[in-house]
Amino acid sequence: MRIGILGGTGPEGKGLAVRWAWAGEEVLIGSRDAGRAQQSAQEVLALCPGGKVRGALNSEVAQQGEIVVVAVPYQGHKETLTALRPALAGKILVDVVAPLAFSRGRAKALPVPEGSVAQQAQAVVPEARVVSAFHTISAHDLLTPPSPIECDVLVCADDAEAKKVVMALAEKIPGVRAVDANGLECSRYVEELVALLLNINRVYRGSRSMVRIVGLAGASSARP
Amino acid sequence: MRIGILGGTGPEGKGLAVRWAWAGEEVLIGSRDAGRAQQSAQEVLALCPGGKVRGALNSEVAQQGEIVVVAVPYQGHKETLTALRPALAGKILVDVVAPLAFSRGRAKALPVPEGSVAQQAQAVVPEARVVSAFHTISAHDLLTPPSPIECDVLVCADDAEAKKVVMALAEKIPGVRAVDANGLECSRYVEELVALLLNINRVYRGSRSMVRIVGLAGASSARP
Repeated sequence: MRIGILGGTGPEGKGLAVRWAWAGEEVLIGSRDAGRAQQSAQEVLALCPGGKVRGALNSEVAQQGEIVVVAVPYQGHKETLTALRPALAGKILVDVVAPLAFSRGRAKALPVPEGSVAQQAQAVVPEARVVSAFHTISAHDLLTPPSPIECDVLVCADDAEAKKVVMALAEKIPGVRAVDANGLECSRYVEELVALLLNINRVYRGSRSMVRIVGLAGASSARP
Repeated sequence: MRIGILGGTGPEGKGLAVRWAWAGEEVLIGSRDAGRAQQSAQEVLALCPGGKVRGALNSEVAQQGEIVVVAVPYQGHKETLTALRPALAGKILVDVVAPLAFSRGRAKALPVPEGSVAQQAQAVVPEARVVSAFHTISAHDLLTPPSPIECDVLVCADDAEAKKVVMALAEKIPGVRAVDANGLECSRYVEELVALLLNINRVYRGSRSMVRIVGLAGASSARP
């Protein structure tokens, strides 16, 4: 499966690229700047020798990716997707973006007119199969393969088939359990959870806090 | 420590009463109806024979409690606290209320003008030492003592001393680890998390989902 990552030069996008390349997937790292994309691809290859990874412009990545991940800053989210809409039609679009702002060192979740960033993606690209995921996984931990990351990835989507594909993609990362967190309407709670985790990291210095859901009956995966 | 629970006849309030009575604390169960309060106290005593538990009117509970927990439905939160303000001055006020509504079976977090229910409590009773906690612990599990509940309780407060007291109170429940989730401003994310967990329970039927924070450096407690 060829996975394209829009904004793949940021830590979250690059981290996911590393883990999927490690799992043998073909990964395209996108940027508005072809040079920066290629440089990030080199960094990913350094962490994952022999991986199938290359850098390209976001526009090419949107075109060539079979699954496309959007990992740009919230501030550029709407604009990026609006420009790429035709290329994204019919594709699984994985949104990992949290609507964060920082003031006096504290993270704060910004209100999103559509309800959540993932719903904004769906509004901008109605033809895409939007799946919200990977918000709460630590970029730092993603960038240290192949150590397992013992956490849950919360996945929200209205398209059941697309959700299943992305849950399987999450579980390619050792230690990760994918949890079906209901429809796209619930993405808001997951996106805002990022602000909570960042503020918890401020209390417990040196933490990279993530979540596990406990008390789950009959979860899809055997872990944990 | 004498703990008063406003709205102690609901499952969350009653569940906390059971666990604290089990830990040897004196618990006052409050209601607007003295008869219902006494009936709930009997139910708690049935689960916790020999416990120091009695029922009383909310107004007496606010007066006599050294720590006061507010566990009323969101719809009655502001009105309840407004009426009891004089009795609550200077006390630790533990807010466990989530601002939920349900439509087509789905839970949804309502916007709260003050930012969160806990901040609403602080606005209504500025003289109280408000601590937000216990939102994500399952009432069902609280009501089955003495089984341990393997989960984290996320605690938000601006008053560091009061926060410490409530974290210790949380860890009187076997299996529970209290996590310092920063200031009252963060309560919003914890309150909204309840909607996410309830919607996850709809996906995984029979679940009573709760959270554990992983990747926490130097947490106050040894658990887990």
